[in-house]
Amino acid sequence: MTEPLRLGIAGLGTVGAGVVKIVRQKANLLTARTGRPVVITAVSARSRDKDRGVNLSDFAWEDDPVKLAQRDDVDVFVELMGGADGPAKAATEAAIAAGKDVVTANKAMLALHGQELALSAEAAGRVIRLEAAVAGGIPVVKALTEGLAGNQIERVMGVMNGTCNYILTRMESAGLPYAEVFEEANQLGYLEADPTLDVGGIDAGHKLALLASIAFGTKVAFDDVELEGIERITIDDIEQAADMGYKIKLLGVAQLTGRGLEQRMSPCLVPAISPLGQLEGGTNMVVLEGDHVGQIVLRGAGAGEGPTASAVMSDVLDIARGIRVSTFGQPADMLEAAKAAKSAAPAPYYLRMTLHDKPGALAKIATVLGESGVSVDRMRQYSHEDTSAPVLIVTHKTTRAALDDAIAGFEATGVVASPPVAIRIETV
Amino acid sequence: MTEPLRLGIAGLGTVGAGVVKIVRQKANLLTARTGRPVVITAVSARSRDKDRGVNLSDFAWEDDPVKLAQRDDVDVFVELMGGADGPAKAATEAAIAAGKDVVTANKAMLALHGQELALSAEAAGRVIRLEAAVAGGIPVVKALTEGLAGNQIERVMGVMNGTCNYILTRMESAGLPYAEVFEEANQLGYLEADPTLDVGGIDAGHKLALLASIAFGTKVAFDDVELEGIERITIDDIEQAADMGYKIKLLGVAQLTGRGLEQRMSPCLVPAISPLGQLEGGTNMVVLEGDHVGQIVLRGAGAGEGPTASAVMSDVLDIARGIRVSTFGQPADMLEAAKAAKSAAPAPYYLRMTLHDKPGALAKIATVLGESGVSVDRMRQYSHEDTSAPVLIVTHKTTRAALDDAIAGFEATGVVASPPVAIRIETV
Repeated sequence: MTEPLRLGIAGLGTVGAGVVKIVRQKANLLTARTGRPVVITAVSARSRDKDRGVNLSDFAWEDDPVKLAQRDDVDVFVELMGGADGPAKAATEAAIAAGKDVVTANKAMLALHGQELALSAEAAGRVIRLEAAVAGGIPVVKALTEGLAGNQIERVMGVMNGTCNYILTRMESAGLPYAEVFEEANQLGYLEADPTLDVGGIDAGHKLALLASIAFGTKVAFDDVELEGIERITIDDIEQAADMGYKIKLLGVAQLTGRGLEQRMSPCLVPAISPLGQLEGGTNMVVLEGDHVGQIVLRGAGAGEGPTASAVMSDVLDIARGIRVSTFGQPADMLEAAKAAKSAAPAPYYLRMTLHDKPGALAKIATVLGESGVSVDRMRQYSHEDTSAPVLIVTHKTTRAALDDAIAGFEATGVVASPPVAIRIETV
Repeated sequence: MTEPLRLGIAGLGTVGAGVVKIVRQKANLLTARTGRPVVITAVSARSRDKDRGVNLSDFAWEDDPVKLAQRDDVDVFVELMGGADGPAKAATEAAIAAGKDVVTANKAMLALHGQELALSAEAAGRVIRLEAAVAGGIPVVKALTEGLAGNQIERVMGVMNGTCNYILTRMESAGLPYAEVFEEANQLGYLEADPTLDVGGIDAGHKLALLASIAFGTKVAFDDVELEGIERITIDDIEQAADMGYKIKLLGVAQLTGRGLEQRMSPCLVPAISPLGQLEGGTNMVVLEGDHVGQIVLRGAGAGEGPTASAVMSDVLDIARGIRVSTFGQPADMLEAAKAAKSAAPAPYYLRMTLHDKPGALAKIATVLGESGVSVDRMRQYSHEDTSAPVLIVTHKTTRAALDDAIAGFEATGVVASPPVAIRIETV
């Protein structure tokens, strides 16, 4: 196969510009690696005049991405516009209908419509590839679908939103409160236009839902992801966690058990000495656990022009080489619907609360925990502030249901001064 | 393609038995992922009677692996015998001549004969795949050849011999001398029959030479790897490095520069807080640096039944799916011969020596370093032991040639009581 592979690129933000640079600068290398030239024939974006630092004059221009997707001189439609619906989805559907393969970085679109899009692509004999949609430059989709294909995957975990990890590690290193570091991140341009996508865990939740589908052969079920953002994490939590040898991370965890598919994207405590605990700043990390391979950890840049463009090119070059692995690693019509198992796997928890300075307050809390079947591993009471005392509890493994039962019972004791914060401690 | 893919497995040690288990236990999963059944038709090993914990009665038996490789009912010859020459090479050649694809875990064979074997396979339209030959279960070959295929690779680094990393981290944690921990590792069965393969860096050097070829599109040049084992590392080095914020690792580094291809497998100092520095025990880690993706770190088990069998299956399942990437990521006849550039890239060095307790001894050493163009970053003199004093020097970036010049000059000063130890500090 020495015919050129012809790309049509829709969306010329930083990632699109990065792809143009790689295709242009690395023509010989890419041909050596795939056995055929890779060329861009046409592009599309909102504004034709904007200076993107790359020369687009060799490429045909389309104002409408749907038209781009349908062009006869395009073999692969590269979707880099973003947005779960609207033009991105319309153009992706048009590309499939016109018999094109699709490479996309669009996690929101795939988390919400991936099953349906993959089904129609596969019915048409085409593929939709998504390496760039998860964890930026880290080749995690390839590791899961191909590298570990001989394994039953047991658990997938990851820190997949660099902005949240930046905020949490910066809070710790600078001793600053959440609101202040959030504002810093905003000034630095680290946050999405709607910051809830980042700090609310939604963006990372999209990625987790995609990885879970690939890992377990289940239908993408973003709505079943238990989402909890980092907005309620205080500097106290971070410092007290550190004091006990833990770091707080916005951690995604997916596992398929007899109880169903558990998908959580929420703040967790992880051991400070674990690879996840040691992850600083905006870097991403994905942990894959297979029944034969054991634990594989992948670490790299989760965003940015170069890393995301590198992931886009990985999919493009696969197609150039004739590698046509399906979107979710197996045909979309074989993916199973899994029952959602919310926080079913037992875990130790970290509990922080403030108790009124009354005799026997701590004993009352311990009694309620015991009655709910939650056993205490460690407990610390800090020196009193006025008439109340901060208390920290690490439980033994328990279910979230038992813990919630205990927390509900705390109120009746009349000794709790502020609502308890409960954070799961993930065994990594 | 729904015809079964038929495997013939030569070598039924732990890895071979692991492959048999996966193929048998995961039949449905593998078919779902690849679209066709994967089956074992025939096996071969030294002894037919040995109990390997797996039932082999369904498979045809061949005493001679060459016969196995030639069987009509074998599509893929899985070579798990080991040994650079002899039966492994003969059977691999026979498999290619008979039109079979080959999957192998044999790093020694490929490091010495990979170019020639890949050429003949590619001339015959077949592939030789080698994921299991490097870093056990870590899908690093796939990450380099496919996941990062849009990048010019700038540097490859890795801790790829778990036994050496076990010895070095155990020396530190237990405060034991090399000889004692070596004996421990021996008792635990961690060492190869010829332990020089491990502690002399040869096994890890084979892996590095393969990764360098893939990363840079150069011919495999194991003979050009600068090899230095861990035998001379003392507990003093480890403790003094730790004192300055470093760990000592048997680190492979390959980079292609204007001066040529540099390949080193040698003890290096790395920052204690880096992912490489934090790697404890027998785990492997590979660091890949691409011009677009930046730094990607991969971590996992580098040996053992499950991890290595997982890597073998990755290649088998690729072939089942019709993925036929060439051994070194591009056709073997396109690989370039690169000039060997021995330790050409400048780096800071750690120098440890003992000086006679004479006035001006340290000044003499500093003068010799200055005359060779080596500038000193930090220097520590420890309290005297009898008539000599241990001295520790960290240099600024320098070439190995300048450093060797200085070390040669130390002798003439008459103040050096024991031969200096020089260890490179790798910027990671």
